[in-house]
Parts: sequence; C-alpha cells; structure tokens
Amino acid sequence: MGKFGADFMLGLLGVIVLAHATYATILYRCESKIKESKITTTLNFIPFVTHSVTRVGAVGEQVTRTSPWGLPFTWGVSSRSFRRRMKRRGRFDIILAMAVQQGNEEKLEEEDQQQAFSKEGFESFLLTMQESICIMAAEADGSGKTFCEDRWQRSEDPRSGYGITRVLEDGELLEKAAANVSIVRGQLSEARAKAMSGRGRPVESGANYFAGALSLVFHTRHPFVPTFRSDIRYFEVEGGGGWFGGGADLTPSYLFEDDANFFHSYYKDVCDRYDPTLYEQSKAACDAYFYIPSRKEHRGIGGIFFDDLENFQQQEDSGLQGSRSTVFSFVKDVAEGFMPSFLPIAERRRFMSYGKREREWQLLRRGRYLEFNLLYDRGVKFGLDGGRFESIMVSAPPLIAWKYNVTPELSTPEANMLDVLKTPRQWISK
Amino acid sequence: MGKFGADFMLGLLGVIVLAHATYATILYRCESKIKESKITTTLNFIPFVTHSVTRVGAVGEQVTRTSPWGLPFTWGVSSRSFRRRMKRRGRFDIILAMAVQQGNEEKLEEEDQQQAFSKEGFESFLLTMQESICIMAAEADGSGKTFCEDRWQRSEDPRSGYGITRVLEDGELLEKAAANVSIVRGQLSEARAKAMSGRGRPVESGANYFAGALSLVFHTRHPFVPTFRSDIRYFEVEGGGGWFGGGADLTPSYLFEDDANFFHSYYKDVCDRYDPTLYEQSKAACDAYFYIPSRKEHRGIGGIFFDDLENFQQQEDSGLQGSRSTVFSFVKDVAEGFMPSFLPIAERRRFMSYGKREREWQLLRRGRYLEFNLLYDRGVKFGLDGGRFESIMVSAPPLIAWKYNVTPELSTPEANMLDVLKTPRQWISK
Repeated sequence: MGKFGADFMLGLLGVIVLAHATYATILYRCESKIKESKITTTLNFIPFVTHSVTRVGAVGEQVTRTSPWGLPFTWGVSSRSFRRRMKRRGRFDIILAMAVQQGNEEKLEEEDQQQAFSKEGFESFLLTMQESICIMAAEADGSGKTFCEDRWQRSEDPRSGYGITRVLEDGELLEKAAANVSIVRGQLSEARAKAMSGRGRPVESGANYFAGALSLVFHTRHPFVPTFRSDIRYFEVEGGGGWFGGGADLTPSYLFEDDANFFHSYYKDVCDRYDPTLYEQSKAACDAYFYIPSRKEHRGIGGIFFDDLENFQQQEDSGLQGSRSTVFSFVKDVAEGFMPSFLPIAERRRFMSYGKREREWQLLRRGRYLEFNLLYDRGVKFGLDGGRFESIMVSAPPLIAWKYNVTPELSTPEANMLDVLKTPRQWISK
Repeated sequence: MGKFGADFMLGLLGVIVLAHATYATILYRCESKIKESKITTTLNFIPFVTHSVTRVGAVGEQVTRTSPWGLPFTWGVSSRSFRRRMKRRGRFDIILAMAVQQGNEEKLEEEDQQQAFSKEGFESFLLTMQESICIMAAEADGSGKTFCEDRWQRSEDPRSGYGITRVLEDGELLEKAAANVSIVRGQLSEARAKAMSGRGRPVESGANYFAGALSLVFHTRHPFVPTFRSDIRYFEVEGGGGWFGGGADLTPSYLFEDDANFFHSYYKDVCDRYDPTLYEQSKAACDAYFYIPSRKEHRGIGGIFFDDLENFQQQEDSGLQGSRSTVFSFVKDVAEGFMPSFLPIAERRRFMSYGKREREWQLLRRGRYLEFNLLYDRGVKFGLDGGRFESIMVSAPPLIAWKYNVTPELSTPEANMLDVLKTPRQWISK
C-alpha cells in the first residue's frame, strides 16, 4: 500500500473514532434531561466498536444506538464490566465530566413499569446500585481512595442472609463513607410481629420474612458539606404483604438555604411523578423520624422518609394498577437520585474556606448524629438483633467531639443552624 | 522593749509557728495509715492558732487536737472554708504533698457507725464529696483549670429535685472530667415500679421516691492513663426500702497489670472491712454490668459495682446491727476511695511517652465507651426519663473516633488489651 496509503488509513481511522466518540457524547447529552448538577460520566472507548456511558443511577442499564456510519454503541454498562474498565482506565477509557442532573426520566419510568417486581430483582438492584454509587462516590471524593468491600454472612446457614459492607475512609470530600447492602431471611420474632401489627401491618410471629436494604451514609470532611444519609429497603412476609421503605436526608453543620431548597426540590420532583401528596407526607415523616427528644432538636434539615409503603393512594383511587412494581419504580427513582441530589451540593461547598471554629462545630454536631443513631434509630435496633455490629457502626462519624453545654451566641451561623433544627421549615412553597 | 526584745519575740514566734506546723504534720502522718500513693494534702496555717489538714475523702470532717504547748489545731475542714482558703493560697496556706493512701480507717469507721443515716445526711455527703473531689482533681490535673459549676432544677417545683454538674475540660491530665450530683424526688412510674419489683424490690407505682447520686467520669488525655468512672447512689421509696448502689471501674486503652492489681486490691480492702464475700460479688457484678453484647467485649478491666444494697449478709447472719448506717459507711468508704484508687495510677503513667498510634487507639476505644453508655447504661436510660440531658452526656468522651473494622495484629499491646476485655481476669488471688 505504501507509506501514503498507510498514513491515509490511519488518518481515516482517527477521524472515524473521533466522530464516533463526539456523536455518542452529543446524543447522550440530548437523550438526558440535563439540568445543572455536575456528575462524572464515563465514556468508555474500546477501539471504534463500542462506547459505554454510565449515567447516575443507570449502571446495569443497557441502551444500544447506531451511529450514522453504521457502528453500534452501547449506553450504560453492567457494574462488573464497568468496574473492570475503571481499573484499565487510562488505556482504553476516556473520562468526561458532564452536566447531568437527571437521567432520561420518561425512558426510565417506561422501563421500570415494564419490569415486574420480585425479591430477586430488588436484591439485584440493591447490588448494582451499591456498586455504581461506590464508583461515583470514590470518583467525586478525588483522593484516589476506593471503597473496601466486606462480604459477610448472618450465620453458617447461607440462606439466613448476607451483607456487603463497603467503606471509604479518610478521603478528601468523604471523611468516611459507607454503602451497605444487607439481605436477611428469617422468622419473625414475637416482638417484631407485634410491633408490625401495631403499625397496621398484620403479620404472625414465626412467619418467614425477607428484608433487603441498601443504606448510605457520607460523612464529609468539609463543615459546609452536609452529612448525607439515605436508604431503600423492602420487607416481605411469606403469605403476607410486602412493604417498601427508604428515604434521603441531609444533616448540615451550617445552613445553606439554597442547598436545602435544591435537595427538597429534587425529591419533591421524584415524589410528584407518583403521587401529589407523597412529598408532603414523606417530608413530614422525615422531620418526625429524625427527631432527638432529649435534645428537642431535629437531627438535620430532613428530606424524605417513607415506610410501610405498599401502594400509592392516588393509584388506588383512580383505579390504576397500584402494584409493587410501581412502588418499586418509585423506590428505584429515589435510589437513583441519591448521588444527583447530593453531589451538586458537595461541589458547591467543598472548596469554600473554613477554619478551626467551623471544624469544631462540625465535630460537635456529629455528636448529635450518633446520639440519634444509638438512642433512637430503628435500623440500629434492628441490626443489634443479630446483625453484624461493625456493619451498623460503620454509620458512625469518623471523629466526634462532645463538649459540655455549648450554646452558640445569638445570630451566629451556628445559632441559625440550631433555629432550623428546633423548628423544621417548609423548603418548598406548595 | 528595744530592738533586741522585738527581735527575740519575733524569733520565738517563728520557732513556735514552725514547731506547731511540724507537730501537726507528724501527728497527722501518724494518725493516717500511710501507704504508697501520692495525694496533695493541705496544711492550712492561720498564724499559730489553727491548722487544718484535708485528707482525701475527709473534707467535711473536723478533728481537733492540742499541741504540747497548749495551742489547738483542727484536722480537716468544711469544703466551703477549704475552697476559700485555696483561693487565698500563698498568703496563709502551706501546701504539702504527702504520701497518703488510706485515711485513718478505724477512726473513720467508728465515726461512720455513730452517725445515723438520713437522706439529708446522704445528700450533704454527696455535696461535700463532690466539692473535695473537684478540688483534688483540678489540683492533680495541673493545668490550672478548674471545674465549672452548673446548678439546675428538674422542674419549676424545687421539691422535684436538682442537680449540680461540674466539669473541667481540656486540662492536662484530664481531657474532660465531670462530677455530677443529682437529687431527684418524684413518684414511681409504672414501668419503674415493675422493673424494681422484678429485681426483688417490691414497690408500688405512684409511691414517692428519693434518688440521690454522685457520679464521676474522668476522661484522661494520656492513652496510658485509664478512663475512670465511679458513682454512689441511694434510692428510697416512701414507706418502703432504701437501697444503695455504686461502684468504681477503670477503662484503660492499654493494659498495665500493676494498675489493675492496685485498683482491684484497693476496693477489695474496702469491701473486706464489711463483708468477706463483697468484693468477689461486686467484682463479678461489675464485669457483668459493663458488658457490650454487640461487641462481645467488656468495656474495661472492671472494679466493683453494687446495686440494691440494703444490708450485709454477714451482719444479718451474725446478728449484728445491719443497718442503713453501716451500708452508708461502706458507701462512704467507697466514695472516699475514688481519688486514692485512681490518682496513683494516673501519676505512674501520665509522663510516659506515647505517639500517634496510641492516641488513635485511645480515640477508638472511647467509641466503645460511648456505645455502652448510649446502648446499655441504665443510668443514661434513667436520665433520659426527665433528666437534664446535657448533664448525662457530659459523661461522653471529649473526642472519639470510629473506624471500620479495626483489628489489632496478634500480640500487640492493643491485642493484649482486647484479650482481657473479651475474657475478664481475676486480678487478686483469693
């Protein structure tokens, strides 16, 4: 072919590769409803055959598109292959930072509706979600640290369930971050059955149950970046009902009203897609749940919290199919919102300057976080009942201070924060 | 009188003063059973009239002796006058460091036996004990910081009781030290009455009760100086019984067998004066109480713990008068032992060198301390029920770290500490 021919072919190849990558990027940006937040998006490039893009909350999802010049490319990746590729990064991958707040919502909803709910499907969603969150959180952290991974079994009988505890410690953004999955199978204790029945969920003691959950907590290093906690969970009793729970809430040390508005608006949007009263209910439930009676303080500025969720009221009323699949779809949207609802806030605040005073106040506020967890949290109490305690206490802040009787002076930022914790606000006008 | 006469009189005065002070010191040292530990003893000197000596645990006690040359001097001082004098120190006071471990035991016992027990007497003992402990602890601390003092009431009705919270923060020896007195008067709740009756103390719900307690916690800065916790308490139901409780225990981050032996021996000596089985029982009760099931670890190396104590078995058997006064005398001895059982250990360890590793391990071990307090401690649960929460949480360590799944390597000092926490030892051969 000669030197000219070889150079020409190489140039052509380069043009095709570039065009392909550019097209994929543009198409992806068009397909996503881009709002304002910054999320890392990975465009995987295996020489001019396949592109994979991970969107927030979309790991596990595969969408294939064909470019005008006939080469296919795939949106999204399975979490395992994505992870493998992350390790090879620098050789085959091009990492692009993109502005993506919310994914292609209509498409997601459509897909969710089609997918029938099963315990196995829920378990698999928890695992892929955990995987993608750990990747995104480590990426956002920026220290180069990654999440360790501990797999444990509840007992020698593997059917009794397992957990996967993943932790990143001493990062830059994340002083300590944990993402836990736990899958429990067992027989309802009498106390448990009584408590559930008391909450209007009639179950019998001794009945087989399944409980699956993904829970996150991000303890951030910067005093202006709030602590983020969230979870989704499903509880099913054999021959009985199946109930979803979950939520997401922020515990800031300093109040930034913009952040509170953004966070609440984010989840209001998610809720409104399913039920117009859902946000209001779950916002109120969140304020009620994260309350520390002994301090007469709420723990943070709330968010949403839901429990015993079986059906959406509106759908029952309107005769629509109010199935577990629809609630699962809502729960998926909530979980897929964890990173996009938190990361934009972190990005806004993490480079602001602060001093010793702010750090000390943050350490004191973390004391309240732990007080709530150990004195009042139902999840901790449930975990104490045969769970792996180290996986529960992973939610503890990395460093906490207790000083006697600290009372901020009037009109300081610290006092303003306390005001909101004493009296929760409505962050969104109806 | 002339210059010579004036000089002579001044010299004579000096000789008398010196002789008087020396005699007082010698006599005091003879009257006390001096063992090995170092305690600050104050010899107050108001020009050749009165000397006052504060012994550990003896504030409030007055013993007057007359010197051979006819001048009287007084042992011991009321806590208020002692405090005033401490402020004047350098003008009228001579401070001497002395080796005093245990006071004049026989004398103390004799006095205790004579003193009939009353709630008022107990309350007054708590207050004078709190005062003297705060003075001694601040003195031992060495930073020049003193204990702040907060008086609070349980409710608008002063009869419902009060508390005095005293805290020293950010000292040299004591990173955070608290000495609380609380006096509660109320009506037994149904739950409380049930719990007590279940423990073999039949009481009726709604009955008037009195509860008084002094509790200490010393969180030390040095990782080799153990955390010290102790309390004494009395609970009386109108027309019913009256029960004492209390104890003292150590929570070291690093094990020093000498310290454990010394501490346990100290309280065994105290117990043995009252009942030969008392130490064994209360040592076992301490190990059982300070246990963290979720960690399968004891919190520290124990000490003594007693509850519902009404009478000594031996005294009932032998027909001796097993009265509240005798038990109160034991409780007083325990409380008077708080400082002499702890300070010698602190003095032995506080100047040893240590590094980042030891400090980090200490912060992690403090996490266990708090987990116990919030998850299991009966005192905290009682306090949550209407107490002043800030006065309960004052027991929290000043700075705590939680790291995920820290497991020390075999045969390290950290692993050796854990071994003892997993399997408590008998520190004293019977």
